[in-house]
Amino acid sequence: MLSKNKIKFINSIKKKKYRDAHQVFFAEGEKLVDELLKADAKVLSIFATNEWIEKHQKKIDEKLIHYDIITNEELKKISALSNPNKVLAMVEIPQLKFNKKEIAQQLSILLDNVSDPGNLGTIIRIADWFGIKNIFCTKESVDLYNPKVVQATMGAIFRVNVHYIDFEKLLQEFSDIKGFTTYGTFLEGNNIYHEPLNRNGFILMGSESHGISKKWFPFIQQKLFIPYFPETNKSSESLNLSTATAIVCSEFRRRLF
Amino acid sequence: MLSKNKIKFINSIKKKKYRDAHQVFFAEGEKLVDELLKADAKVLSIFATNEWIEKHQKKIDEKLIHYDIITNEELKKISALSNPNKVLAMVEIPQLKFNKKEIAQQLSILLDNVSDPGNLGTIIRIADWFGIKNIFCTKESVDLYNPKVVQATMGAIFRVNVHYIDFEKLLQEFSDIKGFTTYGTFLEGNNIYHEPLNRNGFILMGSESHGISKKWFPFIQQKLFIPYFPETNKSSESLNLSTATAIVCSEFRRRLF
Repeated sequence: MLSKNKIKFINSIKKKKYRDAHQVFFAEGEKLVDELLKADAKVLSIFATNEWIEKHQKKIDEKLIHYDIITNEELKKISALSNPNKVLAMVEIPQLKFNKKEIAQQLSILLDNVSDPGNLGTIIRIADWFGIKNIFCTKESVDLYNPKVVQATMGAIFRVNVHYIDFEKLLQEFSDIKGFTTYGTFLEGNNIYHEPLNRNGFILMGSESHGISKKWFPFIQQKLFIPYFPETNKSSESLNLSTATAIVCSEFRRRLF
Repeated sequence: MLSKNKIKFINSIKKKKYRDAHQVFFAEGEKLVDELLKADAKVLSIFATNEWIEKHQKKIDEKLIHYDIITNEELKKISALSNPNKVLAMVEIPQLKFNKKEIAQQLSILLDNVSDPGNLGTIIRIADWFGIKNIFCTKESVDLYNPKVVQATMGAIFRVNVHYIDFEKLLQEFSDIKGFTTYGTFLEGNNIYHEPLNRNGFILMGSESHGISKKWFPFIQQKLFIPYFPETNKSSESLNLSTATAIVCSEFRRRLF
């Protein structure tokens, strides 16, 4: 049985203010919680139907995870999904750090004020697929632990590090490293299919509505463009942010195969 | 002023049943209606705020489009958006045909039971960007004129033809054309970056939850796979449908630049 206070607490976690205050977020549904149990995350508590608990008893006992068996009716009262799916897990928000030397030898994604939860979630999934371990977001970006973002990652959230950070400082710090390039996508950029692409660098993507902020222009060392087809026939205005990110990441990785 | 009956009628068009019965759909918001007015679509009626009408008076007079000036309050009563945006246009559903000879000399996308409106809308936008003029969907796929699909296309819906069709017949018809290949994406497919890719063909994409139906396997002439990175480290299960479609289309077009 779920107490009224517990229901109230879990629901409060749907808001960033309370996630920040308690340093807690939640992940829902069979697929996502399966990924969570495989990951290195600290699970604080699980609320699940009897059916789910029976199936996962061994694993949650091994991990000493506290759980409550709840009914589907109770699950509906705490879920953020339109079709609640068996299980909801409360998870501690991890404290992330990054190592400058490591970042300098990798490809990372920078998101300048991403606002759509679906886009952020999808981009985390893209990063996971292409072995990109770190994403940096401006502090004004949508919150990583927004339930819609968590859901859209399909579990990739437990494998990719997403940092909220001051871009000015970050870009400055990496502006002068040999063999490391900061890339940005621009309508007036060079055809990405023909450009030389470095193995290590930042891929800076603009926001859905405003593109890349002018204040980052001085840090961008190479401007890329995904060409439309045929070249003579531009009708579409732009690609969706996560679509463009996918194509850019794919092109970076293609060069390594 | 909007009569109760008009409000009721417009709201009914949010449902496929009534769109089919009346052969009407609607497009909303400044961006989308701007694209609509540039396109070859038959606009039946526009409901807009005074501000919008004043700005577009010349164009709608030239096109002899009937309009009603409405308040923001009235717009809220008919809109499918959480933030209604100045204008809603009722549009006649076009009767689409395709020419076998033309399709045989192009690249087209086939969607096997796409169910998410955002995915279909995004894929239409991708097709538009890459000059893919035709998308074929199974009859069980999400409806093209679902307001969420229309919205997600950002106007590309007026430039790309989306056909609902019997796949068995379609695949059969194109199964034996020289220089034309039916491609499918599979986890056990060949690395798309290294495969020879034809200029003309079908790119068959599976559904979000079930991939490509087995019944189409005999028609697939080349199996493609988007490799994860690094090759030794598969953690992610899959890419989102529209993400995968974007990467595949980009790779086909890259070969032509």
